Amino acid sequence: MRIGELSKATDVPVPTIKYYLREGLLPAGELSSPNQASYGETHVRRLRLIRALIELAQVPVATVKEILESLDSDTEPLHEQIGRAHRALTPTRRLTSTDEARAAATAQVTELIERRGWTVEPEAPALATLVDTIAAMQTLGQGHLSEYLDTYAEAVEKFTELDIAAVSARPTRDQLAESVVIGTILGETLISSLRLLAQESISAKRWGRG
Amino acid sequence: MRIGELSKATDVPVPTIKYYLREGLLPAGELSSPNQASYGETHVRRLRLIRALIELAQVPVATVKEILESLDSDTEPLHEQIGRAHRALTPTRRLTSTDEARAAATAQVTELIERRGWTVEPEAPALATLVDTIAAMQTLGQGHLSEYLDTYAEAVEKFTELDIAAVSARPTRDQLAESVVIGTILGETLISSLRLLAQESISAKRWGRG
Repeated sequence: MRIGELSKATDVPVPTIKYYLREGLLPAGELSSPNQASYGETHVRRLRLIRALIELAQVPVATVKEILESLDSDTEPLHEQIGRAHRALTPTRRLTSTDEARAAATAQVTELIERRGWTVEPEAPALATLVDTIAAMQTLGQGHLSEYLDTYAEAVEKFTELDIAAVSARPTRDQLAESVVIGTILGETLISSLRLLAQESISAKRWGRG
Repeated sequence: MRIGELSKATDVPVPTIKYYLREGLLPAGELSSPNQASYGETHVRRLRLIRALIELAQVPVATVKEILESLDSDTEPLHEQIGRAHRALTPTRRLTSTDEARAAATAQVTELIERRGWTVEPEAPALATLVDTIAAMQTLGQGHLSEYLDTYAEAVEKFTELDIAAVSARPTRDQLAESVVIGTILGETLISSLRLLAQESISAKRWGRG
């Protein structure tokens, strides 16, 4: 298909597509004449992935490029690919907490990971986020929320097994890696909206007007 | 304590505290002389809550004011307070999907809620987010991810029971409502970082370099 049709199929404006081509996010089409390129299904899929990263996960263009290069690498081990996507997708948030609360939280997290038998790199950004979150709970007088850490971790393990089972079923390595990226982004929105709905429902039953 | 001590205790600069006082986010201190006000523990707690809302949840100041007014209301039913905080805290994200995918997703979500026996208002923003997410999964060729919707919902119910149990134990209605707001924000970061760590661990075991 031509660039105009590609735009129609993906709902991405032609100038935006041209920008992605220039930036190397989207591979060039096949030249059908000196002035005309032709695009296929791979371009449609790649464009949707780019939009998901930029619109949903609000990943900067430079990071999108890095994730895509990693996806396209045939030599990088799958686990490294996933790790690279994870690092790009972990939100970095400023969190206020005391040094004391941070030290306690670090100990709590280290013990949790040992108890669960998780294999986690010490520099994983999600590790820092988890420590920050628990420290902030403590600082905000909500330390009781982290008492249930193991039960939360157990529930999370359950749907992570599902995440992995769902992506493992993808036929090609390409599709598997793509599925991990999309699953990480959309899975988060899925879980957080389910949680809000479940909370609303339990709150309605417990504190609603009957 | 004086405003300088309040600033020190909370790590919030004096001009910012004055801004919150002017905007009505923070109740005025008690006048100890015509030019001097005195602040107490309630101010410390309230300031920390404001910072959590603004820094972590990136809630706009006007919405923070709305949430705090709702928290301070003695007459608004607890369930309404929680609902108001939820609406303010639900992220609205632009999601690309086809009309067909949206219609299918709406049916899927309606059936899920019926099966789980959840009580949810049709205009809950999390409902729209959930539909959008499932439709986007479909559009991005990852429809298989939503096959496990019931199992995700079941795992989510489990930690929502924990959320509610944790906040129900708060001694006063004030503290309970505050705990719900903080729990909603920090709980989300807690779960998402646990999920990334669990994914990393399972991925390392399955696809790592051994």
